[in-house]
Amino acid sequence: MVSVIGYYTTKFGELWEKSLFNLVEESITGVLNNTSLDIKDIDVIFFANMLGGVLENNLHSAAKISELLGVHIPIYRVESACASGGVAINMATNYLKSKSNSTVLVVGAEKMTDFSPEETTLGLSSAASGEEQQSGLTFPGLYSMLAQVYLLKYRYNQKTLASVAVKNHYHGSLNNNAQHQKIITIDQVLDSPYIADPLKVLDCSPVSDGSCSVILTNNQKIINKSNSICQILSSEMATDTISLKNRKNLVSIPSTQIAASKSYSASGLKPKDISIAEVHDCFTIAEILAMEDLGFCRQGQGGKLVSKYATMFGRGGKLIVNTSGGLKAAGHPVGATGIKQVGEVYLQLTGQAVNRQVRNCKYGLAHNVGGSGGTAVVTILTSL
Amino acid sequence: MVSVIGYYTTKFGELWEKSLFNLVEESITGVLNNTSLDIKDIDVIFFANMLGGVLENNLHSAAKISELLGVHIPIYRVESACASGGVAINMATNYLKSKSNSTVLVVGAEKMTDFSPEETTLGLSSAASGEEQQSGLTFPGLYSMLAQVYLLKYRYNQKTLASVAVKNHYHGSLNNNAQHQKIITIDQVLDSPYIADPLKVLDCSPVSDGSCSVILTNNQKIINKSNSICQILSSEMATDTISLKNRKNLVSIPSTQIAASKSYSASGLKPKDISIAEVHDCFTIAEILAMEDLGFCRQGQGGKLVSKYATMFGRGGKLIVNTSGGLKAAGHPVGATGIKQVGEVYLQLTGQAVNRQVRNCKYGLAHNVGGSGGTAVVTILTSL
Repeated sequence: MVSVIGYYTTKFGELWEKSLFNLVEESITGVLNNTSLDIKDIDVIFFANMLGGVLENNLHSAAKISELLGVHIPIYRVESACASGGVAINMATNYLKSKSNSTVLVVGAEKMTDFSPEETTLGLSSAASGEEQQSGLTFPGLYSMLAQVYLLKYRYNQKTLASVAVKNHYHGSLNNNAQHQKIITIDQVLDSPYIADPLKVLDCSPVSDGSCSVILTNNQKIINKSNSICQILSSEMATDTISLKNRKNLVSIPSTQIAASKSYSASGLKPKDISIAEVHDCFTIAEILAMEDLGFCRQGQGGKLVSKYATMFGRGGKLIVNTSGGLKAAGHPVGATGIKQVGEVYLQLTGQAVNRQVRNCKYGLAHNVGGSGGTAVVTILTSL
Repeated sequence: MVSVIGYYTTKFGELWEKSLFNLVEESITGVLNNTSLDIKDIDVIFFANMLGGVLENNLHSAAKISELLGVHIPIYRVESACASGGVAINMATNYLKSKSNSTVLVVGAEKMTDFSPEETTLGLSSAASGEEQQSGLTFPGLYSMLAQVYLLKYRYNQKTLASVAVKNHYHGSLNNNAQHQKIITIDQVLDSPYIADPLKVLDCSPVSDGSCSVILTNNQKIINKSNSICQILSSEMATDTISLKNRKNLVSIPSTQIAASKSYSASGLKPKDISIAEVHDCFTIAEILAMEDLGFCRQGQGGKLVSKYATMFGRGGKLIVNTSGGLKAAGHPVGATGIKQVGEVYLQLTGQAVNRQVRNCKYGLAHNVGGSGGTAVVTILTSL
């Protein structure tokens, strides 16, 4: 069994005074402090980062981290667009299945705000197909097509989308590390400018800097010394076409459905067993699709679920979604996001989610997506 | 035990009529044909590529490969600079230790010749530290410093370096897929223009396009149906400082030493047991250092070893090095290189190395380096 024994996140936001590796160093130091471990206790590192190459011409970050920490252990850089963090968790979990008595540091980071919006948007578009890039489709553009089809097919409107933003900004207001900590209203979302019809500014996750680290272990000695532990029951990954045009329909993300089905099966759980979930709400429409694809409601019912604020903290629902604020309000430093999701579930399952602690949560789920669904990872965790 | 059951390589060279994913498709189709397997037999894919992001703005290649092959299986993109291929082999080997009855496709590819020399050189420099990049140090520059120190300390000269090029071009002349298939002389190397003193054009590996695939499995049914099999005894990875200035000395590559030591230990073998080795000769000096760091000779003796052509095919030596032609003559499409090394060892151990078959080889070694030694992977294989 793979245990999660610690988590640290930097603040997410426009952190102009810090470089990518300043952030990496802060989160690694932070998680070692939180777990009272020394770097010598770490056997291997997985590092999730998407844009270091295209934005800063920095590849080979394994060697950079070796230099920062003064270690010679294996360090694996993982890139799977916006799912890089989730894929790193997935790989680390697999790694621990192959090695006994081992301890793995999983760190994710992204530095996105030091560049012009054009540069960052171009960098992010590297997660889309060449044809999509050449036709000028950015990610708001791709997700706006998903939103248009969904709203039309199931007869929802922009207010439906906006309710996701309202809920997640409320959650962000309870998270000191969130990029956006202000409550917003439906009218504020609807009054914000269009990015790509029907998505408005406040339907979109922000451009962010940040880094997160978790420590996973199957070393019983280290587990025995840990104060706050939860376990990974399953972590599964699936892929799909990079191009939206090659999908059978535009109202679901098959990679999420496949990864979820495998992850439920491997853990022996069902959607109704999950109390808390961090889902990939890069745009408001994405959370609605995730509700359906993860089996939390039937096809077409996601809009109804979010409109009722059924998954909002403090409303007594059976499933609370994106207590961190999600990508939408907590921020989306791409490589860090999938680690933050697992970290937030860890905080919830170990009773450390200050201001936003969901009571009696036994099972949590983290759902991380790359691009427009070309990759998805679903990880299910449990409290002890 | 992890078995290698098949290998395919495209030709290496300036393949202007083919895109990165044309090459990927050719090598995947090729290895499936060579093994009589269907894509449905593959459980997971590791894809090694360094420069798709920085040169072509193409990340998220997992989803691109999912689209190409029509599969939803996990696909992991691996990047560790010039060691990407070796790291992919290492990760795939670890993966198979955690999953029984599984079959893994490892594919590596790089497309480097569609760009100006300035663009490709800048892209490759992403494997060096920011400080090294800013000071204008390219990889020939970094390795020239290693060469200067080595020649001075052990009293060798440019002829010593040139002998590595002569040997590897001879081997390349025996390999139909090599980028350079012409024999060269010491004088030709010495008469070629300087790139970075003491390294001349013919001391440097070329800029290349190419793709390679291998299939690894622990599925006994698939193994039973395979005609040509060798086994991976150990695959180990180590990291080191990205910056040369932070190394204790410049006459060895500690990451190679550590990875080799771990790999020998895990396989129960010693350097003298190895009959064939593919080592990372991105520049001639690199092969000399590798001879020492891999334990094939003592410190300072690498220059003597290569000057005598002791590791050249057809000379009856106990250890033959870089029968493929190495990076130097076979070419260096970065993400493919580490896969090609394992593939060449596979060909040798299974008696398929046309024109250059080393007799009675039982154990082979593949050695892949990232940057100036920030990463190294050493994989040891055996015939059945």
